[in-house]
Amino acid sequence: MYRTHTCGELRSENIGQQIILSGWVQRVRDLGAMRFIDLRDRYGITQLVTDENTPESIYEVLENIGREYVIQASGTVRERTSKNPKIPTGEIEVELSGLKILSSSEIPPFTIEEETDGGDELRMKYRYLDLRRPVIRKNLELRASIAGTVRTYLNNEGFIETETPVLIKSTPEGARDFVVPSRMNPGEFYALPQSPQIFKQLLMVAGFDKYYQIVKCFRDEDLRADRQPEFTQMDCEMSFVEQEDVLNTFEGLIKYIFKEVKNVDVENFPRISYSEAMEKYGSDKPDIRFDMTIVDLTDSVKGKGFSVFDNAEYSGAICVQGGADYSRKNIDELTNWVKRPQIGAKGMVYIKYNSDNTIKSSVDKFFNTVDLQRLINIVKADRGDMILLLSGNKNETLNALGELRLEIGKKEGLRIKNVFKPLWVVDFPLLEWDGETERFFAMHHPFTSPKTEDIELLDTDPGRVRANAYDLVINGVEIGGGSVRIFDSELQSKMFSVLGLTREKAIMQFGFLMNAFKYGAPPHAGIAFGFDRLVSLFAGLDSIRDVIAFPKNNAGRDVMMDSPSSISREQLDELNLKITTPQKH
Amino acid sequence: MYRTHTCGELRSENIGQQIILSGWVQRVRDLGAMRFIDLRDRYGITQLVTDENTPESIYEVLENIGREYVIQASGTVRERTSKNPKIPTGEIEVELSGLKILSSSEIPPFTIEEETDGGDELRMKYRYLDLRRPVIRKNLELRASIAGTVRTYLNNEGFIETETPVLIKSTPEGARDFVVPSRMNPGEFYALPQSPQIFKQLLMVAGFDKYYQIVKCFRDEDLRADRQPEFTQMDCEMSFVEQEDVLNTFEGLIKYIFKEVKNVDVENFPRISYSEAMEKYGSDKPDIRFDMTIVDLTDSVKGKGFSVFDNAEYSGAICVQGGADYSRKNIDELTNWVKRPQIGAKGMVYIKYNSDNTIKSSVDKFFNTVDLQRLINIVKADRGDMILLLSGNKNETLNALGELRLEIGKKEGLRIKNVFKPLWVVDFPLLEWDGETERFFAMHHPFTSPKTEDIELLDTDPGRVRANAYDLVINGVEIGGGSVRIFDSELQSKMFSVLGLTREKAIMQFGFLMNAFKYGAPPHAGIAFGFDRLVSLFAGLDSIRDVIAFPKNNAGRDVMMDSPSSISREQLDELNLKITTPQKH
Repeated sequence: MYRTHTCGELRSENIGQQIILSGWVQRVRDLGAMRFIDLRDRYGITQLVTDENTPESIYEVLENIGREYVIQASGTVRERTSKNPKIPTGEIEVELSGLKILSSSEIPPFTIEEETDGGDELRMKYRYLDLRRPVIRKNLELRASIAGTVRTYLNNEGFIETETPVLIKSTPEGARDFVVPSRMNPGEFYALPQSPQIFKQLLMVAGFDKYYQIVKCFRDEDLRADRQPEFTQMDCEMSFVEQEDVLNTFEGLIKYIFKEVKNVDVENFPRISYSEAMEKYGSDKPDIRFDMTIVDLTDSVKGKGFSVFDNAEYSGAICVQGGADYSRKNIDELTNWVKRPQIGAKGMVYIKYNSDNTIKSSVDKFFNTVDLQRLINIVKADRGDMILLLSGNKNETLNALGELRLEIGKKEGLRIKNVFKPLWVVDFPLLEWDGETERFFAMHHPFTSPKTEDIELLDTDPGRVRANAYDLVINGVEIGGGSVRIFDSELQSKMFSVLGLTREKAIMQFGFLMNAFKYGAPPHAGIAFGFDRLVSLFAGLDSIRDVIAFPKNNAGRDVMMDSPSSISREQLDELNLKITTPQKH
Repeated sequence: MYRTHTCGELRSENIGQQIILSGWVQRVRDLGAMRFIDLRDRYGITQLVTDENTPESIYEVLENIGREYVIQASGTVRERTSKNPKIPTGEIEVELSGLKILSSSEIPPFTIEEETDGGDELRMKYRYLDLRRPVIRKNLELRASIAGTVRTYLNNEGFIETETPVLIKSTPEGARDFVVPSRMNPGEFYALPQSPQIFKQLLMVAGFDKYYQIVKCFRDEDLRADRQPEFTQMDCEMSFVEQEDVLNTFEGLIKYIFKEVKNVDVENFPRISYSEAMEKYGSDKPDIRFDMTIVDLTDSVKGKGFSVFDNAEYSGAICVQGGADYSRKNIDELTNWVKRPQIGAKGMVYIKYNSDNTIKSSVDKFFNTVDLQRLINIVKADRGDMILLLSGNKNETLNALGELRLEIGKKEGLRIKNVFKPLWVVDFPLLEWDGETERFFAMHHPFTSPKTEDIELLDTDPGRVRANAYDLVINGVEIGGGSVRIFDSELQSKMFSVLGLTREKAIMQFGFLMNAFKYGAPPHAGIAFGFDRLVSLFAGLDSIRDVIAFPKNNAGRDVMMDSPSSISREQLDELNLKITTPQKH
């Protein structure tokens, strides 16, 4: 037997007991006659101790022990003279009577402690050591516990967890597929799923009624920061439901997770339309932990001879509470910030409504005090506040104002980590125009249902068609999204044609789904959540990397395994493949 | 709202209520003035009815309705005059006051009923219709419920469910990997995991202590009957444990599943060694629902002048209870059966111990009654029994006897579907000699620990080394297998060298694992279960196909999606790949 207890288990009730522990040496302190060893495992740390009564043989073993050795210790639990209230085992220690090295350790490349980590490169290369740090392991424990909570809720709601295939058919819509050459079908390829979308819809056609799955998905994209080529999706679909049913079911789920995991009661989620989100927050994933909403001043600022405003398609403002005390330097910094190419504003106008009731702006030349006071009234600024204005092309300016709002929110400490403000964004446009390829793309995916009242616009003004689509946003992060689906094969055909898919191409790609719809498809709707993102939100992390046991880096490489890697010539031959450019290795 | 209730929900308590149902038309019966519609969803079937009071408009809708149409029906629940005790909704029916077609259906290629299925080809092509059959859907509900039961048990035992990567590094040991070309790393490939073996061992090095995962794995094999290129594994690993701990934990799990899913209390699992299993059952996955064990008669049958026995390395027998009444024809059939190339016996000898105390054998020329009586005593046959003997090369003969035993067990009705007899097979050989490549292969995998007392044989007689490896077998099917792992990098190196892996190759393939072992690896052990197989066992199915929502056929094709399929030239170019043989399509 390797242990009678774990390293997190012993308490004062155990005093006097003979026990055996196994674990990793966290550290050894040598106080001459006495030695203290902190022994660590997943469950905690227990102090082992030697004194003048300890047999010589134990000291001999101790001589050879260093950090991260795996040892087995036996001894008697006794009361600690100087208790450590910071750890649950702090009342006791173990007086050693036996000690055995199970496994030795070289000096690790970084110390296994909460705070130090040796930098990202080393952490990833030695991920198995990084994962020993309790702070990292707890993220993965949290992940497991959230998955369990999700399953409990959805099982109780009558959802059937159903596995869908990983080796599927390549579909050119959307992002790039990873493909898998088939040895048994030379020249042919499977694709890895970007989502189980089509399968969950088929399960609805099959009468499964309520489906869910926590499942790996794959996307071969040029990786932006914090994207992974493989990621986990919490995927759901329901039949005989309307949008409202889906929102209620999954608002219930998210509330349940908050309650179970954080013991927090979250209020009902507000719902705002896509267009309102854009106009008030300059974003389709607004962070509503703070107000500072955008005010449209397009018309209010025209006609004062300031050509920037006069010629602008759109002018808008946000009001920084207590911002009147921003220094010249602060404002210059913000101006430079909005002029960066990522934000793209041409300039920024400020109006300070000082506490002493005076008003100071960067457009005093064009706007007198009465004009400015009028703007202050429209924006509902108070004394001590500052108004910031941007203007230009409408969409770009709203985006820039949205970014500025988030930046100031961050600076002002308004984006508090453990405050959670979920909301639903609804009524998304069905289609997005792509100027480059001169065609419409599905904003969600080609199976999203248009709003019934907008269907006729598909022929006349497709860009104005709204979808029965919804996103769940928490603290400015898109956590999930879904839609009511088309369940009528004629409407689906029409949608494909609006997307510029020929009938032949549509049949080649989605023929089996269109066929399925011919045999009685129920009305259905669903949603999918980015599970990595959801967990990182609950963990209070900005990156998804540390809620994934073995993540890849930004080049899609696993630096621990050194993968991807080359494969043998024989393997390529078997797959009927030839590499056309020189290999890197 | 599409429905107030499901089609399985209404009872006599609901009589008088106004309700709305949605579902599929199972059938319509036209009794002149009255029409009966069976409306089906996942939850059951409810009878809808019209009569002389029903508005004409409903009859008009009814004219257009056929099987598998999706309809929405509103009406009043009323008591049925002729109740149907076979279904839970059989006490009531719904008097129609409204009817709407939600979705029409072409005539399905087969009727959606329990018994008819239209044959395998059609079933797979129209899997979404096949899945509407309750008998198939219930298999997948069972699958979900077993997964839930497994999670409950393992979570309670302190296991952390941890996701491991799907895009990993190719390792040439074992079966063939599926590979995934990396666009971002030209000429390089990921592999899909055959199991998360290495990752779970790294998680143990990382101190996770107890890990599990229900996870898709992949194997690019020439598909035998009932193999799938992607399959689901229930994968587990524990630290600071010995074989006994693993067996107890997972025996507990299997018992828990039997209790929860079948309400069956299973007895403690017997444990037998690999060599005993081979000698008694001619198989390392014995079906112990019935006895009929093999008796070694090698020496007992020698010296009577029958050269087949005299020259045989091995002769063995099984005793067929009540088999004395087998006809000549029966015995000839069995003889032909064992002579098939799959079994490979040269012939079969029988000894009938008739009820009238006479003895009749096919070797009466060589064995007199006393000789035969002696054999009968050794085999412990009773009057009315028949002994069947095979002889030849030891391993082949044991295998053949094992197959014969199963065949007769089947014929005699001894392999009863809902009797479950799990057992552990332990003490497997560590290595298997492959005559063709003239080298040893790991019987389980290269990380399996030899028994301590056998380690020295690694140098002198590797074939005799026993492993700390174990299989869980139920009713003749291998459900799971695992081992105590090597946790010492020196012993691991030695193992690689016995397997003929050069140090360079070992480092290239498993370097990260060997490195990990340098930083304090705990003793650890684990097990993996074939989840598809486990579910099919509980479902009473011989094939795993019907516990998988969207399975592939024996050529690895998904006939519904028509996948794998060709991909575009552009996609190949992006991947720096060229196909070397003409494509099939």
